[in-house]
Amino acid sequence: MKDSHLRKDPVTQRWVVISPDRDAFSYPEPSATPSGLPTEACPFCSGNEEQTGAEIYAEREPGSIRNRPGWFVRVVPDKHPILHIEGGLEKSAEGMYDGMNAIGAHEILIETPVHEKHWADLEPLQVERVLRACQQRSLDLRNDVRFRHVIWVKNHAVPTSMVHHPHSHIVASPFIPRAIEEELKGFGDHIRWKQRCVLCDMVRQESAEDRRIVLREGGVLVFQPFAPRFPYESWIVPTEHGHDFGAIRAPVLRDLARAIQASLIRIRRLLKDPPFSLVLHSSPLGEYARDEYHWHFELVPRPPQALGLEWGTGIYINPIAPEVAAERLRQVVL
Amino acid sequence: MKDSHLRKDPVTQRWVVISPDRDAFSYPEPSATPSGLPTEACPFCSGNEEQTGAEIYAEREPGSIRNRPGWFVRVVPDKHPILHIEGGLEKSAEGMYDGMNAIGAHEILIETPVHEKHWADLEPLQVERVLRACQQRSLDLRNDVRFRHVIWVKNHAVPTSMVHHPHSHIVASPFIPRAIEEELKGFGDHIRWKQRCVLCDMVRQESAEDRRIVLREGGVLVFQPFAPRFPYESWIVPTEHGHDFGAIRAPVLRDLARAIQASLIRIRRLLKDPPFSLVLHSSPLGEYARDEYHWHFELVPRPPQALGLEWGTGIYINPIAPEVAAERLRQVVL
Repeated sequence: MKDSHLRKDPVTQRWVVISPDRDAFSYPEPSATPSGLPTEACPFCSGNEEQTGAEIYAEREPGSIRNRPGWFVRVVPDKHPILHIEGGLEKSAEGMYDGMNAIGAHEILIETPVHEKHWADLEPLQVERVLRACQQRSLDLRNDVRFRHVIWVKNHAVPTSMVHHPHSHIVASPFIPRAIEEELKGFGDHIRWKQRCVLCDMVRQESAEDRRIVLREGGVLVFQPFAPRFPYESWIVPTEHGHDFGAIRAPVLRDLARAIQASLIRIRRLLKDPPFSLVLHSSPLGEYARDEYHWHFELVPRPPQALGLEWGTGIYINPIAPEVAAERLRQVVL
Repeated sequence: MKDSHLRKDPVTQRWVVISPDRDAFSYPEPSATPSGLPTEACPFCSGNEEQTGAEIYAEREPGSIRNRPGWFVRVVPDKHPILHIEGGLEKSAEGMYDGMNAIGAHEILIETPVHEKHWADLEPLQVERVLRACQQRSLDLRNDVRFRHVIWVKNHAVPTSMVHHPHSHIVASPFIPRAIEEELKGFGDHIRWKQRCVLCDMVRQESAEDRRIVLREGGVLVFQPFAPRFPYESWIVPTEHGHDFGAIRAPVLRDLARAIQASLIRIRRLLKDPPFSLVLHSSPLGEYARDEYHWHFELVPRPPQALGLEWGTGIYINPIAPEVAAERLRQVVL
């Protein structure tokens, strides 16, 4: 069977990840996957560092050694990456269809050495470390000119999570995810009509009206957007315009950490510890970067899709290639 | 609390239905809803016609009486419509934000008088009746100039279905659903570049390659698209170009009924009677109609979202207004 690769739908022009190596564990029985590992078997726990790939980034106690305990946060390669770091893009055509290798990066950000820890219970300093790791990876990954975008997604307690230990996903992709593309169009249209950033305008109106604001931490505002897709969908937005999360300054990062944590504390209390997805939306990179974009986080309690990646990014991951599906459907004995 | 209404997100320019009257039964405990009613209590069973709103359309035995037994298929208003037929659009601005009344039609197509019947087991003639009802409603609803689009969605055995009796939803909306908008852009781009319909091109290439075709019934082709978002996602496409499902001719409708049924028989067998969603994609109406569009059905087994409407149409229905959500989150006692 062919390896993971990318395909573009000619009608919607949407890139899809065809990921046959995920077939076995993600379909058709996602509920059969182990939904939590004991600490001794958890590859993300302190002391089990040898169970992951080599450390890409960490914040550590002074004097501690790479790939050994003593870290506060740690970034490692995903064991089942949806996009692979090796190889060229090798764009290809199959008649009218466009494809390319599933090139990209898929890293795991281990958010604490402690196995059971809700974000609402982390030290504020620890949330800062997580966000700083995300920033540093964004800055590093953009050196790879194959990548057009870096996204960060955190899922808490969604049904398909195989490891309970708090962690999140960093994905660098060779295309711009559909969710970001849609926003880029909106930012672009608004600046052409009004010469202003649409999200800056929203921040101004929300601040003036004060009907949808949940909280404010220094330079970061948390509000329910005017047209939320999901109940309690929250946007976490820096009040000062910036297109690139990678360029976040330390005081804003500190405010952001507090704002995210305060939001999660409220959501956990109100909705009785719901699953949630938290996604960073930031500008594309390099020549695709756009000043008019305004980075922000979107937080959705009880996301309707297990993986969170689809709604958060518009990147669909399909473990069964259509040729395989067609073959199986044709061979059904009637 | 305000009634159902529509809001446009200023960043993505996506319309969302804010539907507070659905709060109680759709959130936060969808699993607590009754997942099937006995026949005597089923409002869609023959003999219980008085439990629904007045019949909008039916195919009936000769001599049988409206709103009484003797029907083969029957269309009635939805009891909890996401869009309401009464009133004007009353477009409004709230500062930079756009809203309008949740005007539209939301009808239920009762697909058979029999309570327990899988589409795979229906008489082919019965599937034709269902599709004809859909066509007739599309033709009728377009007389209302407030409506820009009509969509038809069938969900089978998805978790939130409250009534097991086979039925589907017809929704006429005053805006073009995002999924259709995305396709319109693709059809438009392709015709500008190539002077051809992108879906006609796909039909040609699929027919020539024969690697992703599941089956063919006369003028209707069923294939797995090159870049499917979901495993076993199937597109059911008339081989002759046509933008408007409402204009389908009787022989194609017969082929279509057979093609859909044959697809469902295979999917039921292969995937062991999975839930599925089946959605009609047709051109917008009136002045928004576009010749280059090519109508088709999209069939997704095991849709990742319970309602099917979100992925099928891009219409999000949110039962909790953001002002209410913000208020509740602010009042959390910490």
